[in-house]
Amino acid sequence: MQGQTIERDTDIEALMRPIGKAARDAARVLANAPTSQKDEALAAMAAALRARTDEILTANAVDMQAAEARGTTGAFLDRLKLDASRIEAMARGVEEIAALADPVGAVIASWDRPNGLEIERVRTPLGVIGVIFESRPNVTADAGALCLKAGNAAILRPGSESANSSRAIHACLVAGLEQAGLPAKAIQIVPTTDRAAVGEMLKGLNGSIDVIVPRGGRSLVERVQTEARVPVFAHLEGICHVYVHGPADLDMATAIAVNAKMRRTGICGAAETLLVDRALAGTHLAPLVSGLIEAGCEVRGDHAAQAADPRVIAATDADFGNEFLDTVIAVKVVEGLDEAIRHIATHGSSHTEAIVTDDKAAADAFLDRVDSAIVMHNASTQFADGGEFGMGAEIGIATGRMHARGPVGVEQLTSFKYAVRGRGQTRP
Amino acid sequence: MQGQTIERDTDIEALMRPIGKAARDAARVLANAPTSQKDEALAAMAAALRARTDEILTANAVDMQAAEARGTTGAFLDRLKLDASRIEAMARGVEEIAALADPVGAVIASWDRPNGLEIERVRTPLGVIGVIFESRPNVTADAGALCLKAGNAAILRPGSESANSSRAIHACLVAGLEQAGLPAKAIQIVPTTDRAAVGEMLKGLNGSIDVIVPRGGRSLVERVQTEARVPVFAHLEGICHVYVHGPADLDMATAIAVNAKMRRTGICGAAETLLVDRALAGTHLAPLVSGLIEAGCEVRGDHAAQAADPRVIAATDADFGNEFLDTVIAVKVVEGLDEAIRHIATHGSSHTEAIVTDDKAAADAFLDRVDSAIVMHNASTQFADGGEFGMGAEIGIATGRMHARGPVGVEQLTSFKYAVRGRGQTRP
Repeated sequence: MQGQTIERDTDIEALMRPIGKAARDAARVLANAPTSQKDEALAAMAAALRARTDEILTANAVDMQAAEARGTTGAFLDRLKLDASRIEAMARGVEEIAALADPVGAVIASWDRPNGLEIERVRTPLGVIGVIFESRPNVTADAGALCLKAGNAAILRPGSESANSSRAIHACLVAGLEQAGLPAKAIQIVPTTDRAAVGEMLKGLNGSIDVIVPRGGRSLVERVQTEARVPVFAHLEGICHVYVHGPADLDMATAIAVNAKMRRTGICGAAETLLVDRALAGTHLAPLVSGLIEAGCEVRGDHAAQAADPRVIAATDADFGNEFLDTVIAVKVVEGLDEAIRHIATHGSSHTEAIVTDDKAAADAFLDRVDSAIVMHNASTQFADGGEFGMGAEIGIATGRMHARGPVGVEQLTSFKYAVRGRGQTRP
Repeated sequence: MQGQTIERDTDIEALMRPIGKAARDAARVLANAPTSQKDEALAAMAAALRARTDEILTANAVDMQAAEARGTTGAFLDRLKLDASRIEAMARGVEEIAALADPVGAVIASWDRPNGLEIERVRTPLGVIGVIFESRPNVTADAGALCLKAGNAAILRPGSESANSSRAIHACLVAGLEQAGLPAKAIQIVPTTDRAAVGEMLKGLNGSIDVIVPRGGRSLVERVQTEARVPVFAHLEGICHVYVHGPADLDMATAIAVNAKMRRTGICGAAETLLVDRALAGTHLAPLVSGLIEAGCEVRGDHAAQAADPRVIAATDADFGNEFLDTVIAVKVVEGLDEAIRHIATHGSSHTEAIVTDDKAAADAFLDRVDSAIVMHNASTQFADGGEFGMGAEIGIATGRMHARGPVGVEQLTSFKYAVRGRGQTRP
């Protein structure tokens, strides 16, 4: 097998190298492209998405059929499926990105020095962004459009499950670029589903990729951690926790737990684990569990949760820290704030965690001590979203601590430089 | 050799692993350490540096003797050498870091959403920072103190040339940590000069290092680019350019060129190449070259520069893009702005470049199009410095585009998270 792998990888390397080079060349053009030209391309992309809806749906049907033939789960199919309204939403999403302010060239800060030097911190593009994603085909449009708006070239690698849908969407993006006179290679899609292509991207395509944005589950996480040689904005699992700490309003706690889990189960901000203080178990545990079950959720709980409601299934260790992305939640009773924070540190993915409590000091301690991108008090984890934060469209929620953390929108897809203006100053 | 290397690397891995684990444990304590405790440690470090000046000088003498025995150059020795006033400056530097505002917990931005959610962006530590540096022993104190102030644990790996000096300085940092009741392992120094230890750090010590800050020349650059599996704040070469574009005030151009090259030749903001427009060659080239030579600089130039002054030595291709870090400069005549920008893109290191001109439009184009961390108009590249920017002490100038770019001070050594406060909101 090893001999074969080497031969295959060499082919993939040869396939990927010109993609990297073309992206770098395109990035140089994009870095100085005027806002109006980028926005014209985005408008043309949206128009193409609408005009080619039938072609996209035909391609999506191929992906859906293959997925159903493999017997995949409901949440997975929900992420993969497109219909006319989802394509319209995609087109509107691209138009919303066009309507955002151009981050490139924006002066983020400016100050003068006592010696008269005028210093500005100015946003610049990052360069070439590699996006590795899984089943959701709309990421093709979202990520391509966001990268373009921020002046970056993009290399998109959709999951093999959504490859046909993604290619049909990508064709619309290329049409938009060409219509506006921008390089067609500003947004490229990897033309193979061979996983070796991911390996080449993680190696950076010979210095042609500046940052990798991986969006996916545990196997992608592990692969990126082992192989990546370029910076990564990790958009990994969302193993989000809701923690109910006494005293807590029961109705609020139930509403937040049910919304955090059930509003949409397939998004990374969906809660996967509910932690309840032992002191509240007598009053709150049974109604919380009952509320979840009645909303259609399977509850896998520890002994206390099972004791509270006979419909609770015994949780295994693997249920805590699992990203179900489905109508399933793990429930555990904890001794208090310290155990809750330890549990989250051990089993969480540093994405989004919420505490529900009337105790402001406990809430502040939770928000202070939990090391996640988003920490919430008395709100649903499903608000973990760039749009809900008022930041516009996003490529996802970054779970790492470098550069971008939390919702990654156009501003997070930029770097900056310092522009210094003088009148002949020399340093003493 | 390979068999031996493997055995040695295994030993180094066993040596480094507990260093990583101890750093991670210390980082957890530091993340929640109060400002007063961190500042107490910094004050005690400064006191220890002063109290142990003789021990540090004795250790430095060992390093200096070994370097002189190897016949190293003046600029290298200048970076390595300590004396009482440099140790006093180091102690004052640590005190200045203590006096900076604590970045951890600072609210960078806050806004309310229409649904009543209150969102804050709050600074957090990055975690564990690995600093790989070369000859300058004062980096031990600067980097250790900056990491501590920002709530990060540090693993310092000095160059073998400065190992004795760095260990003596590190002992003062540990004394300060212990006096303030902070973990002694919050700032560790790698106890071997074996280069395999650098390899282990670049692999991240089993997930224990969050970011690597490499400070050094080309060989370190290349090693980091090939081997790093963790995020990197590249602090690499400073191949800085001064470009004189017409019309330009000759006195200003000469003063800036001489200052940019000669004020201190051993710092990364020192100019290494002077570019002069052909249109100015007749009037400006000879006086510019003459000014540099009279300031004690060796000038290596192209044909035009040689024609302008017989003292100019013929430059080779390797002189352009070389970081001399010495009283040597490369001089080249270019056709205009486009060639200057291309030359910088090809030979520069994305650190700091300056244009000297009276033409504001050309200056704006240069500042806009040159992709370096710092771009300057009518000012000396030697201003590339956190202190000169008003940002306080710095660990160096980052030349990458991720997270930190330009001067890296306490704020750049932090991450952030979003704290969201609600009153029971759920997402529709």
